[in-house]
Amino acid sequence: MAIEAARLSPSLTAAFLGPPLRRALPLQLPRLRLRRRLSLAAAAGGDDGPRAVALPSSELRKRRGASSSSSSAAAGSGGDERLRSLRGLFARPDIAIDAYIVPSQDAHQSEFIAECFMRRAYLTGFTGSAGTAVVTKDKAALWTDGRYFLQAEKELSHDWTLMRSGNHGVPTTSEWLKEVLPSGCRVGIDPFLFSFDAAEELKDAIFEKNHELVLIRELNLVDEIWGEARPEPPKQKTRVHGIKYAGIDVPSKLSSVRSQLADDGCDAVVISLLDEVAWLLNMRGSDVPNSPVFYSYLIVEDKTATLFVDNNKVSEDVLEHLEKAGVKLKPYEAILSDVERLAQSGKKLWLDSSSINAAIVNVFRASCDRHVNKRGKAGRQSGKESPSGEPGSGSSGVQNGNLQALYKVSPVTLAKAVKNEAEIEGMKSSHIRDAAALAEFWCWLEGEVRESVLHTEVQVSEKLLEFRQKQDGFIDTSFDTISGYGANGAIIHYRPTPESCSSVGSDNLFLLDSGAQYIDGTTDITRTVHFGEPSPRQKECFTKVLQGHIALDQAVFPERTPGFVLDVLARSSLWKIGLDYRHGTGHGVGAALNVHEGPQSISYRYGNLTALQKGMIVSNEPGYYEDNSFGIRIENLLLVKEVNLPNSFGGVSYLGFEKLTFVPIQSKLIDLSLLSPSEINWINEYHEEVWEKVSPLLSGDSLDWLRKNTRPL
Amino acid sequence: MAIEAARLSPSLTAAFLGPPLRRALPLQLPRLRLRRRLSLAAAAGGDDGPRAVALPSSELRKRRGASSSSSSAAAGSGGDERLRSLRGLFARPDIAIDAYIVPSQDAHQSEFIAECFMRRAYLTGFTGSAGTAVVTKDKAALWTDGRYFLQAEKELSHDWTLMRSGNHGVPTTSEWLKEVLPSGCRVGIDPFLFSFDAAEELKDAIFEKNHELVLIRELNLVDEIWGEARPEPPKQKTRVHGIKYAGIDVPSKLSSVRSQLADDGCDAVVISLLDEVAWLLNMRGSDVPNSPVFYSYLIVEDKTATLFVDNNKVSEDVLEHLEKAGVKLKPYEAILSDVERLAQSGKKLWLDSSSINAAIVNVFRASCDRHVNKRGKAGRQSGKESPSGEPGSGSSGVQNGNLQALYKVSPVTLAKAVKNEAEIEGMKSSHIRDAAALAEFWCWLEGEVRESVLHTEVQVSEKLLEFRQKQDGFIDTSFDTISGYGANGAIIHYRPTPESCSSVGSDNLFLLDSGAQYIDGTTDITRTVHFGEPSPRQKECFTKVLQGHIALDQAVFPERTPGFVLDVLARSSLWKIGLDYRHGTGHGVGAALNVHEGPQSISYRYGNLTALQKGMIVSNEPGYYEDNSFGIRIENLLLVKEVNLPNSFGGVSYLGFEKLTFVPIQSKLIDLSLLSPSEINWINEYHEEVWEKVSPLLSGDSLDWLRKNTRPL
Repeated sequence: MAIEAARLSPSLTAAFLGPPLRRALPLQLPRLRLRRRLSLAAAAGGDDGPRAVALPSSELRKRRGASSSSSSAAAGSGGDERLRSLRGLFARPDIAIDAYIVPSQDAHQSEFIAECFMRRAYLTGFTGSAGTAVVTKDKAALWTDGRYFLQAEKELSHDWTLMRSGNHGVPTTSEWLKEVLPSGCRVGIDPFLFSFDAAEELKDAIFEKNHELVLIRELNLVDEIWGEARPEPPKQKTRVHGIKYAGIDVPSKLSSVRSQLADDGCDAVVISLLDEVAWLLNMRGSDVPNSPVFYSYLIVEDKTATLFVDNNKVSEDVLEHLEKAGVKLKPYEAILSDVERLAQSGKKLWLDSSSINAAIVNVFRASCDRHVNKRGKAGRQSGKESPSGEPGSGSSGVQNGNLQALYKVSPVTLAKAVKNEAEIEGMKSSHIRDAAALAEFWCWLEGEVRESVLHTEVQVSEKLLEFRQKQDGFIDTSFDTISGYGANGAIIHYRPTPESCSSVGSDNLFLLDSGAQYIDGTTDITRTVHFGEPSPRQKECFTKVLQGHIALDQAVFPERTPGFVLDVLARSSLWKIGLDYRHGTGHGVGAALNVHEGPQSISYRYGNLTALQKGMIVSNEPGYYEDNSFGIRIENLLLVKEVNLPNSFGGVSYLGFEKLTFVPIQSKLIDLSLLSPSEINWINEYHEEVWEKVSPLLSGDSLDWLRKNTRPL
Repeated sequence: MAIEAARLSPSLTAAFLGPPLRRALPLQLPRLRLRRRLSLAAAAGGDDGPRAVALPSSELRKRRGASSSSSSAAAGSGGDERLRSLRGLFARPDIAIDAYIVPSQDAHQSEFIAECFMRRAYLTGFTGSAGTAVVTKDKAALWTDGRYFLQAEKELSHDWTLMRSGNHGVPTTSEWLKEVLPSGCRVGIDPFLFSFDAAEELKDAIFEKNHELVLIRELNLVDEIWGEARPEPPKQKTRVHGIKYAGIDVPSKLSSVRSQLADDGCDAVVISLLDEVAWLLNMRGSDVPNSPVFYSYLIVEDKTATLFVDNNKVSEDVLEHLEKAGVKLKPYEAILSDVERLAQSGKKLWLDSSSINAAIVNVFRASCDRHVNKRGKAGRQSGKESPSGEPGSGSSGVQNGNLQALYKVSPVTLAKAVKNEAEIEGMKSSHIRDAAALAEFWCWLEGEVRESVLHTEVQVSEKLLEFRQKQDGFIDTSFDTISGYGANGAIIHYRPTPESCSSVGSDNLFLLDSGAQYIDGTTDITRTVHFGEPSPRQKECFTKVLQGHIALDQAVFPERTPGFVLDVLARSSLWKIGLDYRHGTGHGVGAALNVHEGPQSISYRYGNLTALQKGMIVSNEPGYYEDNSFGIRIENLLLVKEVNLPNSFGGVSYLGFEKLTFVPIQSKLIDLSLLSPSEINWINEYHEEVWEKVSPLLSGDSLDWLRKNTRPL
């Protein structure tokens, strides 16, 4: 699946865009002491949802569609009502704000979120995945990017102004706030929904016009007006991710985290990214579509580890699994009080402030300050300097070391990215099964088109899902399938809808980007095909994209090379004829986890200095998109491996790639005259490998199809 | 000529290594009010040196060698004496320091410097081009890099400790000072010899151990002990660089600088890089070897421009040229008082603090502060905030805008790097003449080796110089020729000496990296040849280097692409067999100016975000070096140009390269079996072009040689 900074989780986006944000003074915590609605504890009582195999996202979406149709209608006609209710809360003396910002995020910066956290969609009526709403006493504006301009225009009521992010002259949210509010206003946010870094940046930006950022931690204003209609939080059971697939047991993983803590002089770390919790505890869940994660936090201390999760999600065997690893359970919403406890006992905390939400970081800092003050009043015998007396106003730990925090990328990030043998084995195995499903699918679709049976882009996606569901260990899609025929293929993150999508025919290119979650691995593959006669132009463009794909696939590079160094290899064939594509070339992929993960990437943006390392997985997906005409993308997943070479200059290792994806590339689309002998050789060797690996899983028509499509050029 | 960060001028090095240095508080100026020795004004009286064509560097070096042999001898035997004299000065009440740092630089951060500024060489006896000496009351240490370890071991007396920079565990100068000095010492420097950024960084580093950096502006302690024996400052006449070659007249260039000043709200700019002054004023000089520059500063104000230069260097026609352009003259050493004048009249100054020395910046800042204080005392009616009362202690203009300075890369840097039509014409023309000289040279050398007439590496360089001197408009070499046979070729910045160099034979590879200054252009070319039978290993390595050279030469890329993006193209063929090279791939080159110039580069270091732009010139010089065996480098200069393509995705221009260098690449060294048809085609087309362009300038044996060496493969 192609990456676009806007689509990535904020931590991954930050890695694309540049160095870590500057730390600034902490936020002033609002003096609210309201009872916080316990958003995740509400769903008590057992639920006998599937354990090992959860509902596929498509099914979840259907159910969701049915249950929320009434609320959608409400958004369409009664948008004003929601805005009016929200503004009504502004004036409450315990809130007292002039504006409120509603982002798309959940409290964990997840790429896919549960419906009950889709507050921005509820408030605005706009259902795209990316967007930020800002409401003042008399204005309401929604920011979204180019992918969603048309959809937002349709879905927003006339009370909303659409802010087309990235268009010339369109202000950012903070620029707009500085524009429309008189100096010295109070701008409210739910600090759970902003990473600490993002909140700091926002605070600094609006402070330029003397506005104060007010962290309203005790209640989310949108939840307040959503009321009873708000969907229940997800309550699917979690499951143990067997050691056969995880490769390393939880005590060993925890021990490695603890030795990193010791190395950095820290006593504890808070993990809030859901895939990091799942990876570290060898657990999986199904709280959100496409990612096998569950809502939770984890605190690892020197001797203990505590999982903050809704008790009802923990079955007997999960409990046993956790107990064996010495992991204790606490309720999800106990995270803040536990962070306070750590602060009060003088623990030094490791916090990844690019992902941990501002609520947690600020509670910790405020609590540290109060604690130091108390000690200070009792007699300043401690050698340590005391931060300024006001709670929440101490300087950053980065700047003066006074505070008990180390702000650093999570100790789990890199460990999770570098796959172990079992994870690699699972990725390889699941990719072969996925390839078999795709071969069956392509064989079927080719036949349908040949016989002039028309299917829409959505129907085609559903059929693909059926083929995948037949494979062992299938759990879910790994993202919403991008099924784009003709001009729709040129929309990089196209999402067909049943009402408005095209049928797949034989007059144009068909781009299909899809992936699956299996019990043992995660897949992500794009193929572009033509069921009729491609034009010379289409063949030229396809061949140039393919040359880029081959060049990156064949790259060999010394260890410590960051991914962006290789990006040009995938583009230079296109550049030679004046073409390019506006997305990155490669993203990390989790092992039976998120289809997008950091820290590595292969992108034309060069802020991400993470070196590609042996055991990492990256996608290789150059493309070309001709607006209103067609789209081309060729995507395989690659495993970074050490290569044995006759030399090793500088005494370093040299790395290269091993393909994980084994699905034929349509030879009809290749203009052979543009290829070098070594490129033709690459294609033939790849197809030979596809045949060897995938043919044993096929029979009948599909086997014939595979034979035909892996013949040497 | 291959680039290595250590060899580059500090501004270019900074561009390689990362973002601009953090600005900090200004230096505390020492309260010295000694009479400064007027180092450049001493040489009064006319000198009838050549005007249009200066002495070649080789001649200068010979003369210098003769005159300085006595002082060299003194360095060898009496090093202690110099150290003793220097330490004697430490105790003077008006100096009162505990350590003194002597860098290699002149006051303009030049790559090539005049002999009278070679203070570090005089003090230490070590004559390599790079090194820093630090002397405390009881210790003396010299830092240099790997290129010079052997030479330094030979040249340093036992009073000196050699610090092998880059070796594991070797401290930096500031780390060492923190180690060897007790807390709270005074460390002296000559602030003319440090860029402001470098001085600030040093100050911050040693402040960690409470040491104070003392700027001793009024005298240079080494000059003081050097006394009468110190060589005269250079006194060659300057000359007008004709509009035919310069392309744009001085008033137009000044007007462009002034409009940049206006855009940034500045009143004046101080230019201190010698090539920037020469470029801006269409003047050339011969104060230093290899670069046609002259010691000077330039201040451009809204209505006036002032050149600070020794009057004796200015002939009648130069004077007329300057008067026409409205440029006034002042003595070289008046720069500080003029900067004070600007400060006192409240002018806002544009300062490139990565190149402008700390003496100038600190005089300006101190003067601003004094002026503001005076106004402050007269009644603080001004709306501007006043910086802190102590002279020299105001905060950086970057941080709070209080000071009257804008710290930003010089407005001349980019203008000089993007060549105009006349400069491009001159570069092309001089490269053809240079190619003719090289063809004659290679023809001669091949003949000599064939007839077993042995010449040393130095003799070969001298012969090459003879061939070049016969070409129209020849002025000088553009750097010391790197003439390396066999294992010597593996030393990237090898400098043969008459006493110890090898003879060029037919048993191994011969690497020759050389360049020239012509009246109309600057060249820089490397070729590697074998006069006997190369080994398969040598052919394999040469072919891999050639493939990298070809890949970069053929690159096409969208505008706004920084050079480092393309670096991998030159390396990936080598990486595929586990080889690499430890230098950058390309550097900028001046037009009849410095052979190394910024701001662009093509390097594996990715701090330099400068985009390659139409009209820039870069070298393309991948290599491979097998220690103790042989060296390979293939270098052409390239002009960045716009390419016409069938598409222009994103509506941007696409850029590519046009070759400037036209000298055959030895086909004997190419393993054809490793090349693709398109690579073979590149070589044949290149050689056809070499023949077409250079054959008209040749006759007899050289013409035959060229015919033979440009035959299609």
